Amino acid sequence: MLMGPGPSDAHPRVLKAMSTPLIGHLDPDFVGIMDEVKKMVQQTFLTKNHLTFVVSAPGSAGMETCLVNLLEPGDECIICINGVFGGRMAEIADRCGATVHKVEVEWGKIITPAMVKRALKKCPKPKLLAIVHAETSTGVRQPLEEISDLIHNAGGLLMVDAVTSYCGVELRVDDWNIDAIYTGTQKNLSAPPGLSPVSFSNRAVKVLDNRKTKVQSWFLDMSLVKNYWAGKKRAYHHTAPVSSVYALREALSIVLEEGLENRWKRHQAVHEYMKGQLEGLGFKYLVSKKYRLPNLNAVFLPKGVNEAQLRSTLLHEYNIEVGGGLGAFAGKIWRIGIMGESCTKNHVNSLVGALKELL
Amino acid sequence: MLMGPGPSDAHPRVLKAMSTPLIGHLDPDFVGIMDEVKKMVQQTFLTKNHLTFVVSAPGSAGMETCLVNLLEPGDECIICINGVFGGRMAEIADRCGATVHKVEVEWGKIITPAMVKRALKKCPKPKLLAIVHAETSTGVRQPLEEISDLIHNAGGLLMVDAVTSYCGVELRVDDWNIDAIYTGTQKNLSAPPGLSPVSFSNRAVKVLDNRKTKVQSWFLDMSLVKNYWAGKKRAYHHTAPVSSVYALREALSIVLEEGLENRWKRHQAVHEYMKGQLEGLGFKYLVSKKYRLPNLNAVFLPKGVNEAQLRSTLLHEYNIEVGGGLGAFAGKIWRIGIMGESCTKNHVNSLVGALKELL
Repeated sequence: MLMGPGPSDAHPRVLKAMSTPLIGHLDPDFVGIMDEVKKMVQQTFLTKNHLTFVVSAPGSAGMETCLVNLLEPGDECIICINGVFGGRMAEIADRCGATVHKVEVEWGKIITPAMVKRALKKCPKPKLLAIVHAETSTGVRQPLEEISDLIHNAGGLLMVDAVTSYCGVELRVDDWNIDAIYTGTQKNLSAPPGLSPVSFSNRAVKVLDNRKTKVQSWFLDMSLVKNYWAGKKRAYHHTAPVSSVYALREALSIVLEEGLENRWKRHQAVHEYMKGQLEGLGFKYLVSKKYRLPNLNAVFLPKGVNEAQLRSTLLHEYNIEVGGGLGAFAGKIWRIGIMGESCTKNHVNSLVGALKELL
Repeated sequence: MLMGPGPSDAHPRVLKAMSTPLIGHLDPDFVGIMDEVKKMVQQTFLTKNHLTFVVSAPGSAGMETCLVNLLEPGDECIICINGVFGGRMAEIADRCGATVHKVEVEWGKIITPAMVKRALKKCPKPKLLAIVHAETSTGVRQPLEEISDLIHNAGGLLMVDAVTSYCGVELRVDDWNIDAIYTGTQKNLSAPPGLSPVSFSNRAVKVLDNRKTKVQSWFLDMSLVKNYWAGKKRAYHHTAPVSSVYALREALSIVLEEGLENRWKRHQAVHEYMKGQLEGLGFKYLVSKKYRLPNLNAVFLPKGVNEAQLRSTLLHEYNIEVGGGLGAFAGKIWRIGIMGESCTKNHVNSLVGALKELL
């Protein structure tokens, strides 16, 4: 039972899709599958963006895709950091040769519009602002709409990490005016890890079209990849991971059969079901209620508990995986994921039952 | 029937492995699987290199991994180009800020030691020389040993693209003193596309350790990835594609069960079996016999044949995929792959039988 920060349990239909015999990646039938996947990624991102496709590598490569394509040496950008993944974005932006203005806050807190306003005073014309919608390292759910207005009023782009929010909590790419977004497949989508859906607004496409320098990564260069995924005549770029694309198609179909909003509601409902029981056992949430992700529960353990030992017992004796803390929270918190197929009352009952026995 | 330049048909055991339920990518059991895979990659590369692992993305990302880690801005390198993939290496090396000295020859010919000697006169102290062992765009099998001596005598590293040779034709990383090598999974290994095994010699590791600048790609930065794949305590970097690693393990096991040298012999034997029959039908090989790859047969079609139409009929009526030509050879040649599980007399008989009917 995968109840960590990802991967989550995959649906049997998705696992079965993985074992479908291969076809050529330029076969007209596979091109049709890529088109279907693209359309379903648009539907699940709630966007009409034409430049929507899937990077042939995990979420971290999706992050790098957004940054290396949008930033050029000498550009200024604002990166918001309240956990591991904001820090990673700053690291990559720096490797792009951009000047990085960091908006930093204690892990477990949100970035406020006031903090962004202060950053915009120091850096009034950033090329982009990057922010994490759902911080996998802390369980914070970041409000985006006000910050979206602030960066757009300053003439910059809004780039969002949606790895842990996509298909699990409300996320509206077009309504919220997100210009560049990436996610992963192994969280609320419950497909195997290895691919990263991404989408770029028309504003972002203009920035791509007006680049002065070549993108530093050939593999992630959108001007090349887009002709493979979305060109009128598909041009060979690399070889897409055929089996993983089959699985992604199946996982996206399952999301749309359930209904995107129903899926958001399910994650919230199972979270409510689990929360009281965890608190009853002495667990305490890291994040204040208002900004808490339903699907990634970052909790301090009851006093006196050896977290590593308990986590290991859960894994080896109960076959349940939960995640440990990262960075400053290593050894202090657990990250309990209820994502996609792992988001059921049965999962919660198994975990809580085991904890009752062990504590 | 996949008889193009890749992917090849996957073994049912490999497909079945893809549908194994997921476990966490930091689960001790998965770490054990990574260790097994690493060991089998060493065995199939015929190397003892400690820095041997698998990039979580297709072969093109393996190519980029080698170049971005070994090259820094201002470095000089020699890139050998006799097809698409040499050209791609030069393109990526340029994006690393390196000065690229190209050794170019007509597509379908090999790079000779004499050509490399001339390049070394213009550029006597290159950081590396990069060359393609098996050019997927032309079917050329490139001898490496003399060129290896030349670049090492000049104090540089030998980097090799082995995407289409790995597990299909003789390839000896340690004996041939190859310093950096990458390959793919979807050719003679017959696993699904999406991963890229790579290996670095101790000479290459010294170069990595002495870098003055950060690697421009965070996702492909070996100094980070190595602690995920090979560190004493595994450090989270990205989320490995768990299912694809299962499949890779199974495919590598199948290679070692057959025996690496037996597998090389099988590719040669099936090639001999096919060659005479294709020539009997009026196909002509692009590459001279001495430098012909057994597993990637680049052939001109019999006169007067509409190649695109014939290829489409083969695909739609016989369910057989063969590859078209790339670049200057588009519309002129076919690339017939007999790789891994697609390298059987049955495949050849199906193809030749269909061609006899259609021509």
